[in-house]
Amino acid sequence: MGVKSTNITAVQHRVPKEARWRANRHMGGVLWFTGLSGAGKSTLAFELEHLLFDKGYQAYVLDGDNVRHGLCSDLGFSPHDRSENIRRIGETASLFAEAGFIVLSAFISPYREDRLVARTAAGENFNEIYLSADVSDCEKRDPKGLYQKARRGEIPEFTGISAPYEAPIDPELVIDTGKLEVQESLEILLRYIEQRFAMPE
Amino acid sequence: MGVKSTNITAVQHRVPKEARWRANRHMGGVLWFTGLSGAGKSTLAFELEHLLFDKGYQAYVLDGDNVRHGLCSDLGFSPHDRSENIRRIGETASLFAEAGFIVLSAFISPYREDRLVARTAAGENFNEIYLSADVSDCEKRDPKGLYQKARRGEIPEFTGISAPYEAPIDPELVIDTGKLEVQESLEILLRYIEQRFAMPE
Repeated sequence: MGVKSTNITAVQHRVPKEARWRANRHMGGVLWFTGLSGAGKSTLAFELEHLLFDKGYQAYVLDGDNVRHGLCSDLGFSPHDRSENIRRIGETASLFAEAGFIVLSAFISPYREDRLVARTAAGENFNEIYLSADVSDCEKRDPKGLYQKARRGEIPEFTGISAPYEAPIDPELVIDTGKLEVQESLEILLRYIEQRFAMPE
Repeated sequence: MGVKSTNITAVQHRVPKEARWRANRHMGGVLWFTGLSGAGKSTLAFELEHLLFDKGYQAYVLDGDNVRHGLCSDLGFSPHDRSENIRRIGETASLFAEAGFIVLSAFISPYREDRLVARTAAGENFNEIYLSADVSDCEKRDPKGLYQKARRGEIPEFTGISAPYEAPIDPELVIDTGKLEVQESLEILLRYIEQRFAMPE
């Protein structure tokens, strides 16, 4: 997307992110969770945030439910608004990563193109984590009763029921949250992060 | 502003900000610099970011020039777009503060109402820092040649020339950057932060 405003110049942040990495003793970047409603995105992100914090990491969850009340409170669920929602979150995640954080973003983000926009914004250290629980698994859990509502036609364009979910083609990590327990998924994620965000020697 | 989307619930971040404060050994919050173009907002913000980083603080600059290329790349300089720009930055600053950071935001933000929106988003620990250099001081410096352009009518609605600047009525701190050297302003800011963001006993 082009930049609409003129008379602006790119300014370097004075503290390079590598200096922040050294101070934090880990690299920054984005873990972009994607998957159906009920696949465990928020659950895993929040559990992981806690675990990482206890281990001394700088980690922060960007979560659809919270961002929707603030940064994206002007957006609804039209195709344009969904894309713009993901675009803004991708840009915010990129700022957090630049500030040295491991960002855990927990959004359905059903469209490949939107996730590619987020990946491009982050620049590097973007990790697409596909939580691959399928509709039948997620519908069995239905923690917020949303699938029931969607089946009754009370939620238009519900991902997996009346709107498409485009599974990642080449994600950095796949976790079958339809089969694994939360604790098992967390262990996989923790090992992944400890390797992926370790400071280069 | 109301929230446009439905079927969402507020989710608590699992790591409370007070725990982050203890780990960082300082509180989080926002320093919202406001003042004319050329008043020293970006200069002071970036110098301060460096100083704070060297002292072990988690600090991060949100800067108009950079945000305009990413989070707000869809916005121009119409009254609506300017307000929406400040609104998004306020919400982003609030997320960073919740994540434990001292956010240094460097935007002209000429309208009281827009700054109030940013203050409300941050919730607490919002500090309006008015850099009070006046038009004649800023025009003498004119580091980017913008005042010259504005005088020639090449930039429409330029704050202080052809668009209003509403000075803060009750800012937390005023620094007369028209009279003080950068180093003097930095010392004032550093003392302010050391007191304001110290952990409560």
